[in-house]
Amino acid sequence: MSDYELYYWPTIQGRGEFVRLVLEELGAPYRDVARTSEKKGGGVASVIAIRRHPHPAHPAFAPPVLKDGELLIAQTANICLYLGKKHDFVPPGDGWALANQLQLTIADVTSEAHDTHHPLGSHLYYEEQKEAALVRGRFFAKERMAQWLDYFENVVEHNGGEYLLGAISYVDLSLFQLVAGLEYAFPRAFAAHSAKVPRVVALRDAIAARPRVAAYLDSPRRIPFNEEGIFRHYPELDLS
Amino acid sequence: MSDYELYYWPTIQGRGEFVRLVLEELGAPYRDVARTSEKKGGGVASVIAIRRHPHPAHPAFAPPVLKDGELLIAQTANICLYLGKKHDFVPPGDGWALANQLQLTIADVTSEAHDTHHPLGSHLYYEEQKEAALVRGRFFAKERMAQWLDYFENVVEHNGGEYLLGAISYVDLSLFQLVAGLEYAFPRAFAAHSAKVPRVVALRDAIAARPRVAAYLDSPRRIPFNEEGIFRHYPELDLS
Repeated sequence: MSDYELYYWPTIQGRGEFVRLVLEELGAPYRDVARTSEKKGGGVASVIAIRRHPHPAHPAFAPPVLKDGELLIAQTANICLYLGKKHDFVPPGDGWALANQLQLTIADVTSEAHDTHHPLGSHLYYEEQKEAALVRGRFFAKERMAQWLDYFENVVEHNGGEYLLGAISYVDLSLFQLVAGLEYAFPRAFAAHSAKVPRVVALRDAIAARPRVAAYLDSPRRIPFNEEGIFRHYPELDLS
Repeated sequence: MSDYELYYWPTIQGRGEFVRLVLEELGAPYRDVARTSEKKGGGVASVIAIRRHPHPAHPAFAPPVLKDGELLIAQTANICLYLGKKHDFVPPGDGWALANQLQLTIADVTSEAHDTHHPLGSHLYYEEQKEAALVRGRFFAKERMAQWLDYFENVVEHNGGEYLLGAISYVDLSLFQLVAGLEYAFPRAFAAHSAKVPRVVALRDAIAARPRVAAYLDSPRRIPFNEEGIFRHYPELDLS
């Protein structure tokens, strides 16, 4: 197996983190290209370049992009599904469609979490849209986040109580990342609701304790959450 | 082959339309359940019920939901991929991942188009968030829509000039729907840019002219665009 190459912004977890976690748990050899030096073909320039070259037939609109030999693919949920299928990290038969359904739902929450701080668009700074962000962010903290967490709690509960699909699969890694991000961004709202979603919290902890994930989270490869990424801690958007 | 059952809101095209178009082009027998009478188990009640029953192990967070025998799956792009794979309406080999990448990109534009009229969240009426919608909508009409259309034009151009992936696949039906929706919602912005994306416009026309699609579009099964759906024509959000 040749090494995978991941192209994603080098200073944030962002959407690339969902891919990084799958690669780390699989123990798959990969190069996080943009985190290597520009001299070695890395840096931000590598992320910009990959969207045009060498596969103009199938350009990515945005990163992350995964390179597997000659194949270049984009869209986070798509990359995760590709890796899940290739490495048997997804239930057999039509199980991929159940996994992908959950992964796309996790992607929906992730986008909503992003839009809490950028409701008017990514072309404006947070400070330029703070008034709108207060409306959207507080509604998310007060209502939406609990709805989403309850949904995943229900899925885990009806599938044996430990994982989303009975046995562990790549979507559990993504739920870990989502929960970690929500707790970082909305600590008060998360604390207020976490007792009602014990299975989701236990799943988050079980994933974090897996040897390869734990080693990754402790390593410099794990970029800390920050206010450039998707999950941002702006206390004014959280429950007061 | 048993009949498919589609569960989606009965009065809008919405996200369900991407699924309806695939089913129609395939000539697959299906029941658009919510558009049958409540007495026969249809209506809005059927959409609400399907999210809980009879598969609590794999509930959908939101419609559309497709029922294929005992399998229930949700998430628009996931349903389309499932149908594409099952009916060989997607390139062979890893082609499904290239198709899914494009489908998820179409889903991203669709969500952006929705958020132009609901930037603060779906819990508020358009009229309650019109000021924010003017910022987001006009930016979409002025900048973003052209970026997206140029992206798809580039993909078609580098894949033989007719379809997104060389041969026709289910993603072309979704691009048709996206383009039709954007033209409905932002007619002035679309008119201003359409000459720059001739292949996308030709693809849209080619799909509309396919016998099964044309018959569908002419039938009462095709719900007209309206201001309850994703693509809404609010002239104040369009180019002035």
